[in-house]
Amino acid sequence: MGGDRGPDEIVAGAFAARSHALTPVLFGDPSVEARGLELVATEGVVEMHDKPGEVVRAKPDSSMVRAVRAVHEGTVDAVVSAGNTGAMLAAGLLELRRIPGVMRPAIAIPMLTPRGPSVLLDAGANADARPEHLLQFATMGAVFAEEVLGVRDPSVRLLSIGEEPEKGNQLTLEAHALLAASELRFEGNCEGRDVLGGAADVVVTDGFTGNVVLKTLEGAVRTILEGFRTEITATTVGKLGGLLIRPAARRLRGRLDPDTYGGAYLLGLRGLAVIAHGNSSQTAIANAIRLAARGVEHDVVGRLASRLAPDPDESARATPEA
Amino acid sequence: MGGDRGPDEIVAGAFAARSHALTPVLFGDPSVEARGLELVATEGVVEMHDKPGEVVRAKPDSSMVRAVRAVHEGTVDAVVSAGNTGAMLAAGLLELRRIPGVMRPAIAIPMLTPRGPSVLLDAGANADARPEHLLQFATMGAVFAEEVLGVRDPSVRLLSIGEEPEKGNQLTLEAHALLAASELRFEGNCEGRDVLGGAADVVVTDGFTGNVVLKTLEGAVRTILEGFRTEITATTVGKLGGLLIRPAARRLRGRLDPDTYGGAYLLGLRGLAVIAHGNSSQTAIANAIRLAARGVEHDVVGRLASRLAPDPDESARATPEA
Repeated sequence: MGGDRGPDEIVAGAFAARSHALTPVLFGDPSVEARGLELVATEGVVEMHDKPGEVVRAKPDSSMVRAVRAVHEGTVDAVVSAGNTGAMLAAGLLELRRIPGVMRPAIAIPMLTPRGPSVLLDAGANADARPEHLLQFATMGAVFAEEVLGVRDPSVRLLSIGEEPEKGNQLTLEAHALLAASELRFEGNCEGRDVLGGAADVVVTDGFTGNVVLKTLEGAVRTILEGFRTEITATTVGKLGGLLIRPAARRLRGRLDPDTYGGAYLLGLRGLAVIAHGNSSQTAIANAIRLAARGVEHDVVGRLASRLAPDPDESARATPEA
Repeated sequence: MGGDRGPDEIVAGAFAARSHALTPVLFGDPSVEARGLELVATEGVVEMHDKPGEVVRAKPDSSMVRAVRAVHEGTVDAVVSAGNTGAMLAAGLLELRRIPGVMRPAIAIPMLTPRGPSVLLDAGANADARPEHLLQFATMGAVFAEEVLGVRDPSVRLLSIGEEPEKGNQLTLEAHALLAASELRFEGNCEGRDVLGGAADVVVTDGFTGNVVLKTLEGAVRTILEGFRTEITATTVGKLGGLLIRPAARRLRGRLDPDTYGGAYLLGLRGLAVIAHGNSSQTAIANAIRLAARGVEHDVVGRLASRLAPDPDESARATPEA
């Protein structure tokens, strides 16, 4: 029921994603036209303005909460939603709970760069983070890059304001030291200009910075492509040139299109959850479902659990984090 | 002596900027060809890798330190440098000192948006900031927008991860409350996607986030324009189209070009300092010099001093900030 384009777009995406190895199950209002897919009838819808902290208690039978719960109950293997991100995070925390040892879940955004696929995290699950959270995000990102993106021995960089270890704010200075001492293939800091260029297989940052960066990129792509159109259509010769480069522009747009992957992972939960953009097309939804399926096939949750199993000595210290 | 392209490029920019109302004075090695401009002979050069905190003591007679000191001594009205930004900040703090009442100087970047000029600050002077610093950055940004960019009654927005006041990290939540209670025309939070689009006349953020955003934008512009070229030149028809849209591409590049303003202000010092990009062309240098001159004509330093004069009741509290 989530997504700005209404349930039919979601159903169309699910329909397109089905295969002999993948069976989409819909959760939503019984009136939705399910095109032959299984539809679990639910009551109520989580709206974009609903407060994340109240959704699970206030709307326990809504499509989103029921779908997340179904992962916990094992009737489905993963959940995909184009609805309220904060509510998905809250539902995931309450219905699925965190993998033991995970301090904070993170939103992992797969990106297609000129140097291949990479992942940026956290893209907004935690507005404030501590250095040890960033270290854990890096570990989760490395597992994601290996298992979902198929990158062997992924490199990790920390987003900061200079490549030198001593450049950054208090958070990144301390996180840099933790990452350098870890077993990850840490290659130091990277800068904002490297994100889209593919500086590393895993780019780690706090949720505030990650979210600002993503939205800055979104805005830049739109402003630049619109600027191009304005300038090109300003003259007759430009218009003719514009016709001739249209296929090239379409290819570029496809490369920069967030629909290519369709979704972001909520990493660190005891179940697989993928968040699609609110404005997802059916193509994006289908890609998000396939992305979730890839995570199931590669047992991302199990792999994360074994990598992040709490050190028995530290578990007493880790518990109050909840 | 700063700037990646060497002194001749700087001299050419200064030569181009001279007018009946503007007399460039060069500070640098006596061997530099000054093209008839006044050249103050200095000894030593601040390098890009020099530690900012040590430059003033280690290289007191370098071109940068001497030029900054000349502003303090009143022999020149403003200083422009394409050298090490951190060193300029350190030299400014030690040689010019802060305007009374100013807790931290900030780097203010003028941007040309589709809706007109705007300013983003802090772009990197302070990697860590407190809410009261952001309030002061906003005030300095408003004075800058009025006096240098010619914007009447400038609007101010706080860069965050959602437009709602309750979206953000601890820093922005508290800064939002301070800004809302201030006398500024505060229009709430904006997001990363709004920066290039011109969401507000003044966009305020901490130096870490501001620097990451700027570099992300730089990288996005480069990656997208390069991607366009690759796609266009992939086919013969595309190449022909590319020739026809070349003037349009040049106009767009001009609009997005950081050389348009050429420089960023170091706001909050008792003297006017402008930082140009390390890779500045002579056009960028000339524009940076003109930008500095505009600040002198409009007495930006005096206007800031009167707006930020410490409240006598609070001066006891403000002093330990030093």
